[in-house]
Amino acid sequence: MKKGKIYVVGIGPGNPEYRSLAAITAIQNSDVIIGYKTYIDLIVDLTSDKKVISSGMKKEVDRCSEVIEIAKTGKNVSLVSSGDAGIYGMAGILLEMVNGELEVEVVCGITAVSAAASSLGAPLMHDFAIISLSDLLTDWELIKKRVDHAAQADFVIGLYNPRSKSRRTQIVEARDIMLKYKSKDTPVGIVRNAKRENESVVIATLDTMLEHEIDMFTVVIIGNAKTFEKHDKMITPRGYDYKAYNEKMGTNI
Amino acid sequence: MKKGKIYVVGIGPGNPEYRSLAAITAIQNSDVIIGYKTYIDLIVDLTSDKKVISSGMKKEVDRCSEVIEIAKTGKNVSLVSSGDAGIYGMAGILLEMVNGELEVEVVCGITAVSAAASSLGAPLMHDFAIISLSDLLTDWELIKKRVDHAAQADFVIGLYNPRSKSRRTQIVEARDIMLKYKSKDTPVGIVRNAKRENESVVIATLDTMLEHEIDMFTVVIIGNAKTFEKHDKMITPRGYDYKAYNEKMGTNI
Repeated sequence: MKKGKIYVVGIGPGNPEYRSLAAITAIQNSDVIIGYKTYIDLIVDLTSDKKVISSGMKKEVDRCSEVIEIAKTGKNVSLVSSGDAGIYGMAGILLEMVNGELEVEVVCGITAVSAAASSLGAPLMHDFAIISLSDLLTDWELIKKRVDHAAQADFVIGLYNPRSKSRRTQIVEARDIMLKYKSKDTPVGIVRNAKRENESVVIATLDTMLEHEIDMFTVVIIGNAKTFEKHDKMITPRGYDYKAYNEKMGTNI
Repeated sequence: MKKGKIYVVGIGPGNPEYRSLAAITAIQNSDVIIGYKTYIDLIVDLTSDKKVISSGMKKEVDRCSEVIEIAKTGKNVSLVSSGDAGIYGMAGILLEMVNGELEVEVVCGITAVSAAASSLGAPLMHDFAIISLSDLLTDWELIKKRVDHAAQADFVIGLYNPRSKSRRTQIVEARDIMLKYKSKDTPVGIVRNAKRENESVVIATLDTMLEHEIDMFTVVIIGNAKTFEKHDKMITPRGYDYKAYNEKMGTNI
């Protein structure tokens, strides 16, 4: 029997405007759609004629095993993640569990830090490090080491999963580490629900960032030594020289 | 007079399948489209009724000044970048040069490392650092420092602009630095023209990576200590425990 194809699909930040055509096509080509309930709810407009299986958090292994069993029966299956399925999404665990017989296509998408950055202005214009503060699957000492080295080397730092109902202290510790190397005036962008309804965008500083709401729907972006705020936008310069332009225009930024 | 709106648009890796609807809408809402010629060529299907201004490399400041002058005359303008306009794209310099009178919207897109990762499998499933090896605008000592700290903290490392016709040695030096901390057997993904015609995908190791073609259309992804290759896919595990599943299926990865 012909086996089905598995698509691991990143649907982007959630707003249909930021999906790719490739993601839509993958879902349309699938008989069955599987995902965490919150993500399934973001694509209801695409799934009316599909079998949809939604499941709760922390069921990743069960979800992949279900995907694999269904594909073996000859059906095409889309396993959906928000953002990019290849960045803290479902692509890795699915590829770990699948054997070589089944065809798997990872469909990339716009990841949360890209969406958040565009709402803030342009904070990711120079080298950056992405770190998840979730220590559910990763040793907290390793996460702290990564925050330390990223701050020491003056990376812009994007934090995923900065805080949840049960994990309250990691963002506080991470900030303390960053303050060893970064000025307390470093701009910090805090974006909740990037590109979704109820998006909120705040530009704070390392000093003040903890005064703002930070939860599991939030991405936090900490600038490098050159990042600045201008006209309510957070900007990390790449290094272009536009002095002659400013002189001509009689402007200073 | 009403001023025009400026869109800074990321068109994704180049293949129309990976554009977002938001990018298409921004271009459709614009009277004038401006960009580096290679990127303009990737969106000809959207620009037949538009005034199109394409320019060469290293003309970023001139291009932004042109965008600003045109918007001041009341026309909407899209400034296009490939990938995500906010990641080593045009969003930063435009926001640096524009004054507060003009409305600017940054339209995020799928950045090159997401596209490359999806073609390789799932190498970005854990914390990663993105570094451009171009020292045109950045001090080489700072770039080396970032490579060093990223390798020390066992980040997956994505390299943009790894090599060009005139910059030949940076990738060699960067590899030497990474070999201080990472095993020579660390998987390295080398993707040229990700998601475009003539895409090539290679999984090598830190030991062998320089035997493969690496140029300015290439993204290089170096794994962390746990990254492995399986069925021709490069996978960085997130840490999920699927031992029980393997036992049930009688499989070992």
